[in-house]
Amino acid sequence: MQHHPARLIAKKRDGGALSPDEVKDLVSGVVDGSLGDAQLGAFLMAVCCNGMTPEETAGLTLAMRDSGRVLNHDHVKKKKVDKHSTGGVGDKVSLLLAPLVAAAGVAVPMVSGRGLGHTGGTIDKLAALPGYRTDLSLDRFGEVLGACGYAMLSPSSDIAPADARMYATRDISGTVESIPLITSSILSKKLAEGIDGLVMDVKFGRASFMREERDATALMEGLVATGRAAGIEMSALLTDMDHPLGLAIGNSLEVLEVLQALEGDCPRDLREVTMALAVEMLLLAGVAADADAAEATLSRLWRDGSVRQAFRDNLELQGGDVRVMDDHSMLGRAAHVVPVEALRSGFVVDVDPLALGHCVVDLGGGRRQPTDKIDPVVGIVLRHTLGDKVRVGDVLAFVHASSDQAAGEAVQAVLDAIAIGDERVKRRPLVKQRLA
Amino acid sequence: MQHHPARLIAKKRDGGALSPDEVKDLVSGVVDGSLGDAQLGAFLMAVCCNGMTPEETAGLTLAMRDSGRVLNHDHVKKKKVDKHSTGGVGDKVSLLLAPLVAAAGVAVPMVSGRGLGHTGGTIDKLAALPGYRTDLSLDRFGEVLGACGYAMLSPSSDIAPADARMYATRDISGTVESIPLITSSILSKKLAEGIDGLVMDVKFGRASFMREERDATALMEGLVATGRAAGIEMSALLTDMDHPLGLAIGNSLEVLEVLQALEGDCPRDLREVTMALAVEMLLLAGVAADADAAEATLSRLWRDGSVRQAFRDNLELQGGDVRVMDDHSMLGRAAHVVPVEALRSGFVVDVDPLALGHCVVDLGGGRRQPTDKIDPVVGIVLRHTLGDKVRVGDVLAFVHASSDQAAGEAVQAVLDAIAIGDERVKRRPLVKQRLA
Repeated sequence: MQHHPARLIAKKRDGGALSPDEVKDLVSGVVDGSLGDAQLGAFLMAVCCNGMTPEETAGLTLAMRDSGRVLNHDHVKKKKVDKHSTGGVGDKVSLLLAPLVAAAGVAVPMVSGRGLGHTGGTIDKLAALPGYRTDLSLDRFGEVLGACGYAMLSPSSDIAPADARMYATRDISGTVESIPLITSSILSKKLAEGIDGLVMDVKFGRASFMREERDATALMEGLVATGRAAGIEMSALLTDMDHPLGLAIGNSLEVLEVLQALEGDCPRDLREVTMALAVEMLLLAGVAADADAAEATLSRLWRDGSVRQAFRDNLELQGGDVRVMDDHSMLGRAAHVVPVEALRSGFVVDVDPLALGHCVVDLGGGRRQPTDKIDPVVGIVLRHTLGDKVRVGDVLAFVHASSDQAAGEAVQAVLDAIAIGDERVKRRPLVKQRLA
Repeated sequence: MQHHPARLIAKKRDGGALSPDEVKDLVSGVVDGSLGDAQLGAFLMAVCCNGMTPEETAGLTLAMRDSGRVLNHDHVKKKKVDKHSTGGVGDKVSLLLAPLVAAAGVAVPMVSGRGLGHTGGTIDKLAALPGYRTDLSLDRFGEVLGACGYAMLSPSSDIAPADARMYATRDISGTVESIPLITSSILSKKLAEGIDGLVMDVKFGRASFMREERDATALMEGLVATGRAAGIEMSALLTDMDHPLGLAIGNSLEVLEVLQALEGDCPRDLREVTMALAVEMLLLAGVAADADAAEATLSRLWRDGSVRQAFRDNLELQGGDVRVMDDHSMLGRAAHVVPVEALRSGFVVDVDPLALGHCVVDLGGGRRQPTDKIDPVVGIVLRHTLGDKVRVGDVLAFVHASSDQAAGEAVQAVLDAIAIGDERVKRRPLVKQRLA
């Protein structure tokens, strides 16, 4: 580091704005270790307490992006657009969205994450596909992108390595909740993908990172402003995560839902959110005249099998066994599949996504710690969702568990998570805000 | 730790007040290492940004005090009162004050620090006395206190060990400037001395930790409130550190100034500050009816040799060679003693204590890093000070250096530090505020 770390930290402590040069110096210290843990913790807390200007956040994001390799896909003669979601329960959108957008002629180089806590991760879901590999070399990642229009990659130590240390430090030091830090963490990795544009899916509601719409809106605005300041096209949707997305929660079960969706059998909420994000990506890429035209194109590609074909092409290129698309039993099945029956008649008035997310973690389908192993086949499949009329004894859901005991506990948890009342309630709008 | 560290840190981040129990838990993590460096850095920064309530600061101070041994001097049947200064240039007050107050019947168990940067340290000055040891066992410290009325101890890893780690962490992480952290660092060690009362000498001005009177006043108020909340008697003076205290700067040279002061030859400013603090200590101890009575007693003891005798008794008990009191040459002398002559006639209108402090560090008489070795005999002795009339060629000061080159550089630095103008200026009041 060129500057004295304590001086830079004290400048942020006193509410000053760090120059791009100063931020770059701090980030170089993060990567080469010359910024010690105590200094990093103090710096992150100073940002939590005093915030950062849009210019500072952009400077931090670019410095973090440049801490590792920045990909370039000039060999792919298409616009490159990605989507990022702030995460939730049952969110398998990426698995559908990438082939959907790729089928429409937009390249999607997607680096995704693993699940933690109640939040699932795209990489874990893909790992439930027999043979599928996300640990591609960066060169191979580019080749797959060129060959089939999209490619899926797990976090690489070559991509934005500063973020890995900063994220791990934030996690233990009470410095997670900061819009500039969340923004730079997300965007540094996305910018390193070599994209022209990014659509953010910012969730709000009980199972989201930002529960309140106000906070989620602030995050959305910060992400869009910072992405634009960093030189890419940005748009964002604020979407509902107060209920699970789709009916399946758990990695293999969610992949099954995706395979069925590719065949045309898609829960309405999952289709709506996926389609809305895909429309934004086409608009950002400039391959559709307007939203209606984009939606018409995407609907046709989904209906005529082009999206399923794109998925199959990618599956094959990333080492997956394509027979799974016709033989879903290859996804495996938990030893114990137990129905959860309604204890009373009425309408489903609530489905608590946080409770269900934790229930899947308890079943072994998620992680408490980043190093935990996951059982891909366990989880929950809802048979009824918000607004449905049910009668006592109807099956509300199936629990997929590895043991009788785990199944029994999960049945109780699912019963507690699904409230039945006397009056039908409607789900709030899935897409609450759009920023483009 | 019982609580999750990140949760406690986030509570402080969000402006919450930590309970004594929560603070105790954090401090136990500081001592046993279960609170990691990143967590400690983040916690300290959260305190810098959001402050602490008086109750929280008292809780932190007591938890830090209790992280090590808390002394008890019940065998000494006197009130135990100490003084602490926030530090400056030429501040040898402790060496005079301890025997002065001890001669008046108040016990002074004093744990002092080493110098760093431009600020001198009592322990370094004492080390310039041949044979004198400050690395006493805690038991021996109590014995010396009982035998002669005062005892001097260097920092011990048994006293408030939490502070050692917190202080080192603050130093590198831009988290030094925080009144609750400064307060708890000072008071935790002082409370562990087993004292009934403490007089704070809070400096303000160029060579002090808090340059602005406003900031120094806030620190003074925080110290007094916290000390009282922690159960001891407190008073404080706000004193001037915009000019050096006394005429000597450098360890042996300051000891010489003290030995001469004990014989009655004391610079006026040094006598005024020492006497003001001694009066406060006598009042806190309840051994004088009022300030005038205290001052009369102290003046008599100083004049009649009682203070010099107390110094001699302590010197002998702590291993020093008492012959130094009559043979000042035993203090040693630098190889090069060079006069600094006035380049013009006029009045001394400024003596920059910060520049002189740094000059002594450059001569080898202070530390840039805590591990630096010190040359005790180098330094500066002023012959003229603020308001004095001087003529061109008059000796303004003597530089004591270990080499010709160092002396030459120091002469130039001293010339730059002493401004001569046309109009006589008066020094601002030495004691600016009193809080009792």
